[in-house]
Amino acid sequence: MERTVSPLYAAIDLGSNSFHMWIVREVAGTVQTLAKIKRKVRLAAGLNSNNELSEDAMQRGWDCLSLFAERLQDIPAGNIRIVGTAALRTAVNSDTFLSRAEHILGYPVNIIPGEEEARIIYQGVAHTSGGSGKRLVVDIGGASTEVIIGEGFDNNALTSLKIGCVTWLERYFKDRALTAANFDAAIAAAKGAIAPIIEPYQELGWETCVGASGTVQALQEIMLAQGMDEIITLQKLKRLQRQAMQYERLEDLDIEGLTLERALVFPSGLSILIAIFESLGIESMTLAGGALREGMVYDMMSQMRHHHDVRERTLCSLQVRFQLDTEHADNVAQTALSLLTACDPIWQVEPQAYYLLNAGAALHEIGTMIEFKQSGEHAAYLIHHSDLPGFTRAQKHLIAELLRRFREQLTSLPEQHAVSAPTATRLLRLLRLAVILCHRRDTDHQPPFALSAEDNKLTLTLPAHWLAANPLTDTELQQEANRQSDMGWPLTIIASD
Amino acid sequence: MERTVSPLYAAIDLGSNSFHMWIVREVAGTVQTLAKIKRKVRLAAGLNSNNELSEDAMQRGWDCLSLFAERLQDIPAGNIRIVGTAALRTAVNSDTFLSRAEHILGYPVNIIPGEEEARIIYQGVAHTSGGSGKRLVVDIGGASTEVIIGEGFDNNALTSLKIGCVTWLERYFKDRALTAANFDAAIAAAKGAIAPIIEPYQELGWETCVGASGTVQALQEIMLAQGMDEIITLQKLKRLQRQAMQYERLEDLDIEGLTLERALVFPSGLSILIAIFESLGIESMTLAGGALREGMVYDMMSQMRHHHDVRERTLCSLQVRFQLDTEHADNVAQTALSLLTACDPIWQVEPQAYYLLNAGAALHEIGTMIEFKQSGEHAAYLIHHSDLPGFTRAQKHLIAELLRRFREQLTSLPEQHAVSAPTATRLLRLLRLAVILCHRRDTDHQPPFALSAEDNKLTLTLPAHWLAANPLTDTELQQEANRQSDMGWPLTIIASD
Repeated sequence: MERTVSPLYAAIDLGSNSFHMWIVREVAGTVQTLAKIKRKVRLAAGLNSNNELSEDAMQRGWDCLSLFAERLQDIPAGNIRIVGTAALRTAVNSDTFLSRAEHILGYPVNIIPGEEEARIIYQGVAHTSGGSGKRLVVDIGGASTEVIIGEGFDNNALTSLKIGCVTWLERYFKDRALTAANFDAAIAAAKGAIAPIIEPYQELGWETCVGASGTVQALQEIMLAQGMDEIITLQKLKRLQRQAMQYERLEDLDIEGLTLERALVFPSGLSILIAIFESLGIESMTLAGGALREGMVYDMMSQMRHHHDVRERTLCSLQVRFQLDTEHADNVAQTALSLLTACDPIWQVEPQAYYLLNAGAALHEIGTMIEFKQSGEHAAYLIHHSDLPGFTRAQKHLIAELLRRFREQLTSLPEQHAVSAPTATRLLRLLRLAVILCHRRDTDHQPPFALSAEDNKLTLTLPAHWLAANPLTDTELQQEANRQSDMGWPLTIIASD
Repeated sequence: MERTVSPLYAAIDLGSNSFHMWIVREVAGTVQTLAKIKRKVRLAAGLNSNNELSEDAMQRGWDCLSLFAERLQDIPAGNIRIVGTAALRTAVNSDTFLSRAEHILGYPVNIIPGEEEARIIYQGVAHTSGGSGKRLVVDIGGASTEVIIGEGFDNNALTSLKIGCVTWLERYFKDRALTAANFDAAIAAAKGAIAPIIEPYQELGWETCVGASGTVQALQEIMLAQGMDEIITLQKLKRLQRQAMQYERLEDLDIEGLTLERALVFPSGLSILIAIFESLGIESMTLAGGALREGMVYDMMSQMRHHHDVRERTLCSLQVRFQLDTEHADNVAQTALSLLTACDPIWQVEPQAYYLLNAGAALHEIGTMIEFKQSGEHAAYLIHHSDLPGFTRAQKHLIAELLRRFREQLTSLPEQHAVSAPTATRLLRLLRLAVILCHRRDTDHQPPFALSAEDNKLTLTLPAHWLAANPLTDTELQQEANRQSDMGWPLTIIASD
C-alpha cells in the first residue's frame, strides 16, 4: 500500500563525462533522494577522431551500468527513464554500446537529440528555481552545451551546441598546458560555436541567467571557498583564469576550493563559460537547483507538472510533509503580510520581502514537530538542511534565521544577503507580532489591530476591551514590546477606546 | 478540515504548588505541544490551620486562570479537561474558589479524589514509559503523594497520601533551617503516612520503579549536573541531603544543578522521597516521561488508549509523521534481527538489544526526509530532540548514535549507558549490514545470507551467483568489510558455491 502512495522513480543519465543514477521517492509532492550514484566513465574521452567509441570506454560504461542495473529491478518500468546524451549522439558505433547496455539494464536507453536534452534541462531548472520573467539557462556538459531561454515552465528557445568540457579538454588542452594560447584557442573556438545563436537569443532577451551542471557548480564552490559571494560574473571568471594560469600544467593546478575530481575539466569548462558570458553579454549567473536528472524525474511525476508556482509548491509540500496546521499557518501569513502592507508606505521594502515573510509564516511551526521548547532552533535546522526549490541559498538562510527567532528570546539576525539588513530586522519583528496576534488559532477572533510605522518605531493599537478580554495576549504583547525595545527597535502597544 | 483530522486538546491541572496548562495537537497518534504555561500559584501554602484558602492565594489562582481562559476558547469542549487536586480537596472553602474559577474559565473544574488522581497519573506514566512487568509509580505533589502499582495499562493499587512538598515545607521547614532535626522530623512524619501501605504494596511487589513530578525531575537534573547517571538510589538521595545540610538556611542553598525555582521545596520533597525509598525498600528509580497532565490528555484521545505497546506506538507514529517507507523499514528490521539471532548464541546480548536494534532499523531512513547526503546526522538530530515515549534517555541516545552511523563513513560509538559497549558496537555493525543487504527495497529479492560470529569476528556468506548478479551490493559489502575491519571489527564476506 505504501508503495502505491509514494512510488519510486529512477533517472539514469549516460553523460559524456559521467554516468549518474538518481533514485527518488515521491513524498507529498517532494522528491526524497534514496540513492545517488555517480561514476566517472568519461565516454567522450574515448571517442577517436573518427567518432568511434573505444572498446575501453564502452567497457567502463558497461561496468558502471551493471552496478546501476541491480537497483533498477524493483522500480516500476514506467518510473524509469534512461537517456544518453552528446557522446552517444556523436559515436558512430553507439549501436554496439547500446545493445549491450540495454541488455545489462533490462530497459531501453533513449539517446535524446540535443533539443530534447535542452527541453528536459529547462524543466529541471524550472521545477527547482523560483522567480518570474524570462530566464537564460546554460548547461555545460562533457560534449555538448545547452542554452535555453524560457519563462515559467515554457521554453522559448532550445539550443544544443557541440562544445563540452571533455571534448574541449581533449581538443585545446591536450598538452595539459595552462597557457594563454590554449585558453585563447578554447575560448575562440567556443565563441565560434555560439555565434549563430547570439542574434536570436539577444532578440528574445532574458531577465535572469542560471547555470546548471558540474562546471558551474565547481565555479561556485571555488568562489565560496575563496570568500566571494554566490553570484558568478565575467570579472570573477577572468580572475579564476588568471589563477589557473599561474600554474604551468593541468596536473599542478591547486586552486582553493577546486576538488581533484573537477580539476581535469576545469580549464576547458571555464573557457566555454567565459566564451558564453562574452558572446551573449551575460552580466551575472546563479547556480540552478537542478537540470537534466531533475527534469527527467519531474517529467515522470505528472502531478507536479502543473503546479506553476515553485515556491508555493515548496511551502505546501513542507507543510504536508511536516503535518503543519495549514489553516493556522495561513492565518499567521495573512496577518504578517497585512502588518507589512501597513508599514510599506514608510519602509519601501524590496519586493521579495513579501514572499520571504510569507514563507516564514507558512513554516513557523515546523520545529514544533520535533519538540516544543527549542522549536525555533529545530526550525532553523530543518530549513537549513532541507531542499527549498524556488528559494535561493541566501533566501533559505534568512528564512532559517527568522524562524530561529520566531518566538521567545529575541536576538539580532546574523549577516545575510537575501534583503537589506533593515528589511530583515523588520520582517523578524512583524513575524513575531503576527505569531502573537494569532495565538488563539482562530481567524474569527483575530484582534482588530492597527499598526503604524515611523522609521523603525512601531505602534500597535488594539481596542482596550479586546486586550482586557485577552489578558494572555495582552501580557505577551507587552513582553514583546519590551523585548523589541530592548533591542533598540521601539514598539509601543496602545489600548484604544 | 485540518482541525477534524488533528484536533486540539487542553489539560489544566490546578495543582497544590503550580497551575499548569498544556495545549497539544494530535498528529499521527503523537502529541505535539503547542503551548505549555505554568504559574507558581502555591495554593497549598495559602491554606491556614483551619484548611481555609486565603483570599490572596485564591486571587493568585484566579489571575492565573484568566490567562489560561483566553487559550481555551477555541478548543472543543470535549477536548478540555480541568482538574483540581489535593489543595482543593482539602480546602473547606473550595466552593468559593471554584465558582469564580469556573466563571473565568467557562468550563467546569473537576476536583478529583486522590484515587482518581493516582489512576490518571498511572495512565500518564503507562503511555510514556516502555518496559514490561509490574511497576511502582511515585508522584510527589505539593500536598499529596500518589503511590501506584500497575502493569501495562492496568493499575493494581492506587493510593494518594496526604504528604506533599509544599505542606511538608510549611510543616517541617517553617523556620527555613536545614538542620538534621528538621530533616529527621520530615522523614519520620512521611514514614508515618506511608506505613499503612507498606505491607499490601510489598505483597503485590514490583519489578521497576518510576518517579513522576517536579521533585523527581529536579533530583535527576541535579544528579546529571553533578556527573552522576540518571538512576536515583537511596545512597544518592542521602548524599544530596548531606549536601543540603552544609547550608544553614533554605535561602542559602547552592547545590550544583538545583534551580532557584525548585530550591524552596527541595528539602521537603527530598525528605518525602527518602521516606518512601526507606519504607518500601526501593532500590532504584527512574524518571517517568509523563504523569497527571499526560494521563488527562491520553485519556481524552480514545484512539491511543488501546495501543498496548508504547514503544511500538512510538515507532509507528514516527514512521507516519516522517512518512517513512514502512515496508522497507520492516524489511531492514527483520533482516537486522535475524542477523542478531544468528550471533546471539555466541554473543549473549542483553534482552533490550533486540528492541533497540529494531528501533534503529524502523527509523533508519528518518534523516533522508530532510536531506540525503548527511542523513545520518539528521537522523541523530531528530531522534535526539524528539520525544520517544517508551524509550529511556539512555536508549534514545544510543538509537541516535546508531543512526548517525547507519551508512557510509564508520566511526566508533561514544560512551552510552543503554547496553554494554561491546553490544552497542555489535548492534551498529549488524544495522549497517542489514541496511546494505536490503538495498534493493524488496523482500522477494532478499539475498540468502548466513552470518556466523566468533567473538567479534563476523563471517557473512552469500551464494556466489547471487553476488555476481548483484554487483552493487557485492561492492558495498566488500567496502563495508574493509570499513569494519579497519575499525578492528573483522568482517569477512564469503561467496559460497
